[in-house]
Amino acid sequence: VRNLVALDSPKHRFFVPPEEVGDGDVQFSAQQAHQLANVLRLAAGDRVRVFDGRAETDHVVEITRLSSTAASGSIVGDIERAAEPTTRVVAYPALLARDKFDQVVQKLVEVGVASIVPVLSMRSLVRASPNARRRQRWQRIAQEAAEQSGRGIVPDVEEAVPLALALTRAAGCGVVLFAYEQERELPLRAALAQVRGRRARVVSLFVGPEGGYEPAEVALARAAGASIVSLGPRILRTETASPVLVAIVLYELERAGHASRP
Amino acid sequence: VRNLVALDSPKHRFFVPPEEVGDGDVQFSAQQAHQLANVLRLAAGDRVRVFDGRAETDHVVEITRLSSTAASGSIVGDIERAAEPTTRVVAYPALLARDKFDQVVQKLVEVGVASIVPVLSMRSLVRASPNARRRQRWQRIAQEAAEQSGRGIVPDVEEAVPLALALTRAAGCGVVLFAYEQERELPLRAALAQVRGRRARVVSLFVGPEGGYEPAEVALARAAGASIVSLGPRILRTETASPVLVAIVLYELERAGHASRP
Repeated sequence: VRNLVALDSPKHRFFVPPEEVGDGDVQFSAQQAHQLANVLRLAAGDRVRVFDGRAETDHVVEITRLSSTAASGSIVGDIERAAEPTTRVVAYPALLARDKFDQVVQKLVEVGVASIVPVLSMRSLVRASPNARRRQRWQRIAQEAAEQSGRGIVPDVEEAVPLALALTRAAGCGVVLFAYEQERELPLRAALAQVRGRRARVVSLFVGPEGGYEPAEVALARAAGASIVSLGPRILRTETASPVLVAIVLYELERAGHASRP
Repeated sequence: VRNLVALDSPKHRFFVPPEEVGDGDVQFSAQQAHQLANVLRLAAGDRVRVFDGRAETDHVVEITRLSSTAASGSIVGDIERAAEPTTRVVAYPALLARDKFDQVVQKLVEVGVASIVPVLSMRSLVRASPNARRRQRWQRIAQEAAEQSGRGIVPDVEEAVPLALALTRAAGCGVVLFAYEQERELPLRAALAQVRGRRARVVSLFVGPEGGYEPAEVALARAAGASIVSLGPRILRTETASPVLVAIVLYELERAGHASRP
């Protein structure tokens, strides 16, 4: 383990997968080389910040070789960064039209989600399972948001699944909260008090599509053991509701401060 | 006062200023007439929901006369709606480029802000004070968001003001929270505990532009009595930070539930 040294924090931050981070060397992707050389106009000798999704710290990396298509650097030290939340919040947003879902992915990553599972529901305006290119696009958006927001990991954007399957999967992992605007019985606050009591390590959050969930879908969620929660007196657009809900859940559950991961 | 009657809630909801709501009659604007007749394709006899920004309930209005340019209706009863927050949260977001600020206005209204004051700051990419047309556009976005999210008022989008003026004004109204990503001393949670202790009725929230605030601006805020708060370990885009911050403030301060306005 490298010692933490007193280093200025470089401005630009990149994710490099662990297999490209050797003991002291970092191999950037061709796309990052283009970004470094042609967009940011950096040169050999300049420093950037790198995280690999595993280490508890960021690496300060000095660029050693740089062209438009290839770049590498060497690690000159490590630098502290904020810890990831101790609670893993898995978001299950209903699939939305292109631009809106891009926004949802970006904002969910910023606010601290652990992973994202797009959900196909009855009233989703988007019915077909997204193709590989669309998933790659979401994963790229997630990576950029993780780089910019100072995350320690790049949350996965997984394959879209039908609601029933998503519920079954979530129910096996911990507490499941299912936002439903018609709900009047269980406010989010009460649900989160229950979550705290159960010391859940994984919280799964379902937010519906523009038209909301069908009553049959809510019944399905209830049967799967989900807590049906109200987001409060104001009706939020679905692309607002997902990030706001995750932010409030982490605000409420990370009360003890952001301890380092156990 | 009309009695609350058992009525189905009409799907579409409109703001009509109080001067256009007579004792039993409602006069829609020309733009709303177009919306009712040509977009929603409603007809005389159909019902909509109307709020006027003053009454504690929504009116159920039956359309009596409708053309593409003029529409009126009569109130057939009143229907409950969620109360406005007891805490007035005034948002002071730094002015952003067109699309982003439109988004900020829309989402701030959804999550429950009382009014919005755009702020001109040193690093704002937008320097010039917005023209009247742009303000009208924001006010229209605020109205649409209020209609759709079930608000009881349409928050005002006020004239843009320089940061120093905004701080002076906010300091005269109650508690002022100034979000600053370099802040490490006062987490939002601690600031909100102080706010609860002071039983503030008005909370003013400042969120900076893309490049953040200049240290001189932060010093100005401190001198004006603002609490400089950290939004937590993750760095949020400014258009994410404003609505998330307001949502958390209302979540934290409206603990007693949404009591009716005093």
